[in-house]
Amino acid sequence: MTRHLHLNAFLMSTGHHEASWRLPESNPFANTEVEHYRELARIAERAKFDSIFFADSPVLLGDIGRRPAGSLEPTVLLTAIAAATSRIGLIATASTTYNEPFNLARRFASVDHVSGGRAGWNVVTTAGPEAARNFNLSDQPAHAERYERAAEFLEIAFKLWDSWEDGAAIADKAAGVWGDNERVRPIDHLGRHFQVRGPLNLPRAPQGYPLIVQAGSSEDGKGLAARYAEAVFTAQQTLADAQAFYADLKARTSALGRDPDGIKILPGIVPVIGSTETEALALERELDELIKPEYARAQLARTLRVSPDDLPLDQQLPAELPDEDEIEGAKSRYTLIVSLAHREKLTVRELIGRLGGGRGHRTFSGTPEQVADAIQDWFDQGAADGFNIMPAVLPSGLVAFAEHVVPLLQERGLFRREYEGTTLREHYGLARPVGRTSSLQEATA
Amino acid sequence: MTRHLHLNAFLMSTGHHEASWRLPESNPFANTEVEHYRELARIAERAKFDSIFFADSPVLLGDIGRRPAGSLEPTVLLTAIAAATSRIGLIATASTTYNEPFNLARRFASVDHVSGGRAGWNVVTTAGPEAARNFNLSDQPAHAERYERAAEFLEIAFKLWDSWEDGAAIADKAAGVWGDNERVRPIDHLGRHFQVRGPLNLPRAPQGYPLIVQAGSSEDGKGLAARYAEAVFTAQQTLADAQAFYADLKARTSALGRDPDGIKILPGIVPVIGSTETEALALERELDELIKPEYARAQLARTLRVSPDDLPLDQQLPAELPDEDEIEGAKSRYTLIVSLAHREKLTVRELIGRLGGGRGHRTFSGTPEQVADAIQDWFDQGAADGFNIMPAVLPSGLVAFAEHVVPLLQERGLFRREYEGTTLREHYGLARPVGRTSSLQEATA
Ligand SMILES: Cc1cc2nc3c(=O)[nH]c(=O)nc-3n(C[C@H](O)[C@H](O)[C@H](O)COP(=O)(O)O)c2cc1C
Ligand SMILES: Cc1cc2nc3c(=O)[nH]c(=O)nc-3n(C[C@H](O)[C@H](O)[C@H](O)COP(=O)(O)O)c2cc1C
Repeated sequence: MTRHLHLNAFLMSTGHHEASWRLPESNPFANTEVEHYRELARIAERAKFDSIFFADSPVLLGDIGRRPAGSLEPTVLLTAIAAATSRIGLIATASTTYNEPFNLARRFASVDHVSGGRAGWNVVTTAGPEAARNFNLSDQPAHAERYERAAEFLEIAFKLWDSWEDGAAIADKAAGVWGDNERVRPIDHLGRHFQVRGPLNLPRAPQGYPLIVQAGSSEDGKGLAARYAEAVFTAQQTLADAQAFYADLKARTSALGRDPDGIKILPGIVPVIGSTETEALALERELDELIKPEYARAQLARTLRVSPDDLPLDQQLPAELPDEDEIEGAKSRYTLIVSLAHREKLTVRELIGRLGGGRGHRTFSGTPEQVADAIQDWFDQGAADGFNIMPAVLPSGLVAFAEHVVPLLQERGLFRREYEGTTLREHYGLARPVGRTSSLQEATA
Repeated sequence: MTRHLHLNAFLMSTGHHEASWRLPESNPFANTEVEHYRELARIAERAKFDSIFFADSPVLLGDIGRRPAGSLEPTVLLTAIAAATSRIGLIATASTTYNEPFNLARRFASVDHVSGGRAGWNVVTTAGPEAARNFNLSDQPAHAERYERAAEFLEIAFKLWDSWEDGAAIADKAAGVWGDNERVRPIDHLGRHFQVRGPLNLPRAPQGYPLIVQAGSSEDGKGLAARYAEAVFTAQQTLADAQAFYADLKARTSALGRDPDGIKILPGIVPVIGSTETEALALERELDELIKPEYARAQLARTLRVSPDDLPLDQQLPAELPDEDEIEGAKSRYTLIVSLAHREKLTVRELIGRLGGGRGHRTFSGTPEQVADAIQDWFDQGAADGFNIMPAVLPSGLVAFAEHVVPLLQERGLFRREYEGTTLREHYGLARPVGRTSSLQEATA
């Protein structure tokens, strides 16, 4: 059987390049305009992408001078997009650290109902003290604590999604019996972080539950992914690193008794496409020259936990930096940035340029052929089951990818020409989860 | 100036009559089908209703045999409907007891952005111990405590909605400055229930903030409404009661220095419409005969805090019942039911029939003329600024109201023939709130 690759379109206002909003073509208010996102979703759907995706964090961070700031809440945004599309999957990010399981499980089940089985949830634990301060805390819970809470949160969500058996609503008009009380059961969850009685106040969703996506690459993050995730977004700079990550995560998944094909690994790629390589490089340069380094340096200083003055633009990173162990925020992102700088001996200015394009994701500038080759290369060499496509500029970068790269991938037999299924999980070649109310009941008892 | 009345369509699966789902015409799975609700919204919009509305509670209560159970989360549902409509207002219920202010403020602001200024929030405190058990508690917080939390929750929401000044996004491409940091400020809220730093991660919404609706009629509920609400839903059985409630709430609003016209009072009415009075009464009887009294008796027993066995169907309510003071759940609903039963000397069976139609709201069966008269009567006599229309059967009851009652109200000059504004607040004749970031800053300092 030929393996097919999966494509997710990671959407973000005017594009992933931090200076994209400054281009003449860009609508700088796109971040709050639903029509902008509907149009992007339609482009991705015409190209038969598996899904679109929105990142999210419940906090306004940093300097709003830098780039379009603020964003629509992703489940609301995806619901607004659902109406303008019919097949493409819709993946929203939501935090297990700053939500209640009952509310969030219900919201994702609702999006799945409303979209006819197209919902996915990128489960994140939300790094950083700033978000905590919007939720009655003075600092973030420790990294390990956040991941422990995430695991319990997911267990509750699964129990709630399965608290109604399929077909529990029998709607017997003659007898006057709408639902079968025997097939809808409380979950009586009592754990370290939560106490949730259930059942959910919503019949089982078309997909049973949303596709579970995960995006943290620390040890704890990989542990959570291996146990629960069906798709994983990851930032990988080199083929070797990506292969190691891929092999590691598949092995962890197998070790837990799961089918390693049941978890799809999607590294990010920021393609900058030109009809010639020179044109692509010129576009990349145009974008990089629009970056104002003072914005990025302040953010880099925050990530590295040093002062901006410790980061002269034309010197390499200071020798003394904290270990990943000491980082309570986003561990894997921290390590990725530091190793990129060290490996390539980048100055702060160069590092900022690299991060400005893809925030740590692999950037790749070239012709459609070259981009298709870069994708096929990692796919063939055990580094990816598909890709998280992060256009530097939107909509134009997505249009270029859809019109020029996707046809090449189709010609090479790597990518679908038509959707075969109607649900998000079908696009990723995954089976609808069987309800497990009864077995859960036994496990809890 | 002629006063115009306001109409809100209160939507609920197959209708407000508990047996409506058993009619041959009803789709018993409508409660989770977005197309059903889109169609209802289009009907209401064609008839120029001010708004549609969904009630909500984050818990599955009672016997799912009784009637369609479970519902889509209202902000998701309204977003799905927004795309199918262009003018009608969209009011969702959400609980201040079981949400976090940052998340909910952002979600309503998002719905307002996505719908072009059509969002409203029915602020409820959620009665009953069952919901509490889905949120880490073993019982509900006390009634007064819930309302105190609600007031603080609203204060935070206002501050967050105003944390971006209008026009804070300047998008100066040439200078590379997207937003003006001086016009987006943390709120630094520190109160008894919450600690929220802010600012919101979303620019100010088209309406500034959603229309604030309130629906509790206890003393505390009226206090909250007088301070914050722009529209109030209320269940009133008699003209005298409705007049007293209306006068009381307008007076409380004035006493707080607010314009009493700034709060619109909308009693509920469950119209059962026939082309003759006989036909309307026959439809009402048909529906009542489909009620299975054992379902309703169990719920009534729960509300009254007695055992079902204490409620023989053909006797009146027991003499010994708790005082409203002892009720920690929905106080005003409790009192309404007990006084209705006492006033009209109803047997349990008769009381169940009355509640089965409208759950305590005024039911009215008659011709379109009679329904229009009933509406005009209360409107003219100081009992209402408009009505919460609760069709017994959906869609047919809404179609009948839209096609036969609305034209009469229009002919009488009581109701609009066309929308004049584009936002929900404009439909209700209310001004867009001025941002108050700076004054708040001073107040907090
Ligand atoms: C493609 C991609 C998207 C991500 N999106 C988010 C996001 O939207 N919100 C978030 O809090 N974290 C997001 N993350 C980051 C991780 O979830 C984050 O690192 C997490 O807070 C902790 O990860 P760790 O396990 O690496 O410490 C994303 C990561 C990747 C690779
Ligand atoms: C038309 C109408 C709709 C209502 N919708 C809800 C609702 O959706 N959710 C809810 O918890 N309470 C709802 N309520 C009830 C009040 O908010 C409820 O009584 C509240 O929990 C406490 O009210 P009290 O002030 O009367 O004790 C509604 C009331 C009315 C009149």
